[in-house]
Amino acid sequence: MIVDCDPGHDDALALLLAVGDPRLQLLGVTTVAGNQTLEKTTRNALRILALAGAGEVPVAAGCDRPLVGELTVAEDIHGGSGLDGPDLDVPVAAIADVHGVELMRRLIMGSAGPVTVVATGPLTNVALLVRTHPEVLPRVRRIVFMGGSTERGNTTPYGEFNIVTDPEAADIVLRSGVPLTMIGLNVTHQALATEEIIAEFRGLGTRLGVVCADLMTFFASTYLRVFGFEHPPVHDPVAVAAVIDASIVRTVAAPVAIELTGTHTRGATVVDLHRRTGEAPDVDVAVGLDVDAFWRLLMAAVRNAGQTPS
Amino acid sequence: MIVDCDPGHDDALALLLAVGDPRLQLLGVTTVAGNQTLEKTTRNALRILALAGAGEVPVAAGCDRPLVGELTVAEDIHGGSGLDGPDLDVPVAAIADVHGVELMRRLIMGSAGPVTVVATGPLTNVALLVRTHPEVLPRVRRIVFMGGSTERGNTTPYGEFNIVTDPEAADIVLRSGVPLTMIGLNVTHQALATEEIIAEFRGLGTRLGVVCADLMTFFASTYLRVFGFEHPPVHDPVAVAAVIDASIVRTVAAPVAIELTGTHTRGATVVDLHRRTGEAPDVDVAVGLDVDAFWRLLMAAVRNAGQTPS
Amino acid sequence: MIVDCDPGHDDALALLLAVGDPRLQLLGVTTVAGNQTLEKTTRNALRILALAGAGEVPVAAGCDRPLVGELTVAEDIHGGSGLDGPDLDVPVAAIADVHGVELMRRLIMGSAGPVTVVATGPLTNVALLVRTHPEVLPRVRRIVFMGGSTERGNTTPYGEFNIVTDPEAADIVLRSGVPLTMIGLNVTHQALATEEIIAEFRGLGTRLGVVCADLMTFFASTYLRVFGFEHPPVHDPVAVAAVIDASIVRTVAAPVAIELTGTHTRGATVVDLHRRTGEAPDVDVAVGLDVDAFWRLLMAAVRNAGQTPS
Amino acid sequence: MIVDCDPGHDDALALLLAVGDPRLQLLGVTTVAGNQTLEKTTRNALRILALAGAGEVPVAAGCDRPLVGELTVAEDIHGGSGLDGPDLDVPVAAIADVHGVELMRRLIMGSAGPVTVVATGPLTNVALLVRTHPEVLPRVRRIVFMGGSTERGNTTPYGEFNIVTDPEAADIVLRSGVPLTMIGLNVTHQALATEEIIAEFRGLGTRLGVVCADLMTFFASTYLRVFGFEHPPVHDPVAVAAVIDASIVRTVAAPVAIELTGTHTRGATVVDLHRRTGEAPDVDVAVGLDVDAFWRLLMAAVRNAGQTPS
Repeated sequence: MIVDCDPGHDDALALLLAVGDPRLQLLGVTTVAGNQTLEKTTRNALRILALAGAGEVPVAAGCDRPLVGELTVAEDIHGGSGLDGPDLDVPVAAIADVHGVELMRRLIMGSAGPVTVVATGPLTNVALLVRTHPEVLPRVRRIVFMGGSTERGNTTPYGEFNIVTDPEAADIVLRSGVPLTMIGLNVTHQALATEEIIAEFRGLGTRLGVVCADLMTFFASTYLRVFGFEHPPVHDPVAVAAVIDASIVRTVAAPVAIELTGTHTRGATVVDLHRRTGEAPDVDVAVGLDVDAFWRLLMAAVRNAGQTPS
Repeated sequence: MIVDCDPGHDDALALLLAVGDPRLQLLGVTTVAGNQTLEKTTRNALRILALAGAGEVPVAAGCDRPLVGELTVAEDIHGGSGLDGPDLDVPVAAIADVHGVELMRRLIMGSAGPVTVVATGPLTNVALLVRTHPEVLPRVRRIVFMGGSTERGNTTPYGEFNIVTDPEAADIVLRSGVPLTMIGLNVTHQALATEEIIAEFRGLGTRLGVVCADLMTFFASTYLRVFGFEHPPVHDPVAVAAVIDASIVRTVAAPVAIELTGTHTRGATVVDLHRRTGEAPDVDVAVGLDVDAFWRLLMAAVRNAGQTPS
Repeated sequence: MIVDCDPGHDDALALLLAVGDPRLQLLGVTTVAGNQTLEKTTRNALRILALAGAGEVPVAAGCDRPLVGELTVAEDIHGGSGLDGPDLDVPVAAIADVHGVELMRRLIMGSAGPVTVVATGPLTNVALLVRTHPEVLPRVRRIVFMGGSTERGNTTPYGEFNIVTDPEAADIVLRSGVPLTMIGLNVTHQALATEEIIAEFRGLGTRLGVVCADLMTFFASTYLRVFGFEHPPVHDPVAVAAVIDASIVRTVAAPVAIELTGTHTRGATVVDLHRRTGEAPDVDVAVGLDVDAFWRLLMAAVRNAGQTPS
Repeated sequence: MIVDCDPGHDDALALLLAVGDPRLQLLGVTTVAGNQTLEKTTRNALRILALAGAGEVPVAAGCDRPLVGELTVAEDIHGGSGLDGPDLDVPVAAIADVHGVELMRRLIMGSAGPVTVVATGPLTNVALLVRTHPEVLPRVRRIVFMGGSTERGNTTPYGEFNIVTDPEAADIVLRSGVPLTMIGLNVTHQALATEEIIAEFRGLGTRLGVVCADLMTFFASTYLRVFGFEHPPVHDPVAVAAVIDASIVRTVAAPVAIELTGTHTRGATVVDLHRRTGEAPDVDVAVGLDVDAFWRLLMAAVRNAGQTPS
């Protein structure tokens, strides 16, 4: 599995789940601008991997802005560093000396078997891979992306942050012909980091547990301020969880279109659950989440990943 | 109060509520193409008023198509007549010899006090009134319209039928400066005509009760077939109920924009509940419904309106 | 013939041509917001008719803004009054006590034969007539409108002022099924009021000639400043001239679409001269102008219309 | 100089001009899908270079479709091979074993001085270079592209083929910050291959001259059939000519926007010659062509490039 991400508090948990779950082999991590600038999301990915004892996983920086239009980062949600909250002072590995898209290409072409790509940020890198190197697509088992919603959005009334940030990239990925799973706000808004969850992180007795607790405490404060949420939703690890155990999310196959041209709805994921439009392509759209199983998976991975005592 | 409508099964109940509730004075009814053609919706309005013993209420036909684009009727939901199901054979009054927009103008200018306009179809007539006769607007107390959604739509993934049918008309009405209440699918999908409700209509012992029961029985069959709904939602009378008793719907003030240009989202009502856009205008958007109170109101009105035994 | 206009310097010449040419019967004039506010364009129409000795022609005010969106007047071109330049102090007739759309309806329904509508402003009134009173359309011989371009625009790179001001209205008129002639910038930019033309107006020896000369002198100054034109184009009278003598403009039948949704091109008239799109509707699109014949017609009409000495 | 192209009859002449003019150093050629499929445009580029004795110039294939949307080739203009007409049976060099975008990156990074990129097809490859490898941009002297128009288009009423094929790519390139020259239809429609020009090619007495004559004879037949042009315009070599001798095209600096969202105008180049929009970015837009100087340059290059007798 490759994780393409823009950490980001919930991306950090997604990385930890990818590192800590024994059933996954994390081939590499690529970063993209989104929750913060490319420089910051790349540094954050290196830090989280280092803290998780996975400093050997190659990390390459990808695109520093969306295909079309300007980048707007989510500083109000993730803070000035993109990972505000915990102490992340840790020696990090060097970044790979290739572009993120090229790293993805090499990892996929070099893999013995098909590779799953999990994308938890804007889909810029994945779209460039699809368009520049279509020869890799038959070797991609599935693209599982956190993004969009079957219901309301979080950045605009009908638009979710990752897709709104780069709608054209999402359109390219959706039309790539690769099997797709969409993990939208409609399910991730059920994966809430309650006080009990945060206490459980802190109680792990490891530095990583404290980091997770501190991340979620900061995240809770911004979600409360911006959205009035009682508890913050941890979007991105749901996408990794869906790869580990398909039974954790319930999906339905439905046509999904990306709105590229709306005045108020650009970046909306238009999911035709009732099959009113007769449109392709079909995406496996998550519509249900086994919340308890999800948290058990994530907690076990964090326990497993970082065993340095706090 | 003036009702502008396109009956339609749920419009029929809206008219009955307007006629039967003792607190309302129904000044006139105007019709518009929508659920069916203008000819059919006009005839249906006359029939329902006749059955309700309100043949004296003036009825005028308005626009036979939306401002921009073509009309697509909802024959799959309302049948070939627009009111399939019951026996509606009844002598009807003559239609007024003026355009619906002109009747609205006259009724408003001739009224001693301010007038509430309830619109339960596409907003074509109301928009033409706004644009052609802005001098009436200070005499309009409020426009309460059934249309749109804060969540998903019913005609497209994010578009509700009345607004999708004439988005430009909705835009004109939303920018009119008149106080507005939006009754969207997010609340009307709670007003479900269950078997108990249908039995209660039938048990009223009046011809009108049987008509309502037959209307809802037909409506249930199409909603089951098209949307997989267990019980059909009666959208339009919720708008009339909100005029009778404001406590029946809970509203929040929010900016509402109509998407005029999207490829997949044209006609979406983009309701900025979290105030992320900083946009005006403010609309009182219904977000909650007192379902029991609603049905008590409607049942009482039907009992009151038509006392001919079945 | 009915003239629907927003005077406006070139609209003024269009009215004078309509009044002064012996082959036309001017049934009425309706006004619309465009070059200036409705109040100003209406007063200007009354003044021009009074100066032309046509105070008996009924004038009614129509719409004070476009169907969708806000009004932006062309004060940089037509000045604060909409007719800056000449002395227009003249007693004017009263405005009709009906809406412009209603006056159009009455004149058309009351006419013994079919009526030609010439529109020289935004098409708001004409669109409302089409949508509110489709029963008049079989009695409309043709709608000749000044608007759009087969080439570049004047308000945006591809948009002409009248159409950009109310694109939805133009779309409604284009789809009305009435025979249409489009007089666009591609021909009106050939109808230039040179110094010789202005001198000829002034040399007529009538007050009206002086008014025309003063109008064109002012118009020349704004076209020079805003567009760098050596001589100002008199757009609107070309539309009236095309009604008087069809040989003055050469037309080709071509599909014309109005761009309603572009980010940079809203209001463009997309004229498919090479029939690449396969689209309807067909419009008679002016592509050539007999410039000399046009000026002879206009000069004769101004001579004929106002015989009060200067 | 690097040429990114999709030969294509006029692309072929552009390559010959780039090879044959002694002032240019052609570092490499990259190909893109456009006039024909990527496979065909790549083969055509290899053939033209071989015929011109420039088989040592590296050629790499780039993108096989536009960033967003589907590819529509111009088979009606360029024939089934993309270069219908002449006998092109010639041994060709091998294609480079890297993607076109990567070849561009390497050539630019490996060059001692700044590099000019001439693009004569859809801008897909150039856009991917801009987005994937922004580090090369300071080493790009200028991007000169054939595309768009200040007036009408050729694929849609306001859209030119290269830009309509990949509007998002054009948008990315226009916003890249690199100095840009736009060579649009407004000037290339003046570069007509008349019978005299074709005879002059044929009279060169070389195989390449015959190939050019045969190319233009075929091109003339399709332009006559599709557009009714008396002589075919050779668009692409004008872009190369502008690099060789800046005095051949007259340019003005103007904001250019790409219409990404129009219903009828997607892909239009909206050139604000009158500075009405106040928009950036500024592009050097060709508005005049020294036709004689252009043909002298092109004829001399073809004479120079291929000296094998016919």
